[in-house]
Amino acid sequence: MALLDYFRQRKSNSAAIAKERLQILVAHDRRGDGPSYLPHLQRDILRVIRKYVAIDNDAVTVNVERDGSREILELNIILPD
Amino acid sequence: MALLDYFRQRKSNSAAIAKERLQILVAHDRRGDGPSYLPHLQRDILRVIRKYVAIDNDAVTVNVERDGSREILELNIILPD
Repeated sequence: MALLDYFRQRKSNSAAIAKERLQILVAHDRRGDGPSYLPHLQRDILRVIRKYVAIDNDAVTVNVERDGSREILELNIILPD
Repeated sequence: MALLDYFRQRKSNSAAIAKERLQILVAHDRRGDGPSYLPHLQRDILRVIRKYVAIDNDAVTVNVERDGSREILELNIILPD
């Protein structure tokens, strides 16, 4: 499966290896032009992750991109030592 | 950013264009060997998505892969018409 192949091929640098990390991507292929719920989903996903692991607010980077009808939410989380 | 570039470069086939979809990837780079919480996270993420949009159970495909210390959870969701 192409996406999994992509993840497998990624090479971690030494800084990335030293930290435990979570990376979350949400891609939404939309047809309509109604309001996006991705910002709400982002908040809720962080909330459920916090059920399992402590996350510092400054350890989360968020990126939202739009490309035509596709929206992509990217969360990168460095987990605490 | 490489991951976003990857998403942008993906070509949708005509079947994919016809449906509204959500694709979620969670990659966990782990250091320890404690229990994985990704299966629980999967359940919780589906629950929060259902706050915003109806999802049929048979519209969700789940894949979990392990590659050394990396775990990847992949959810593909076809949204209802």
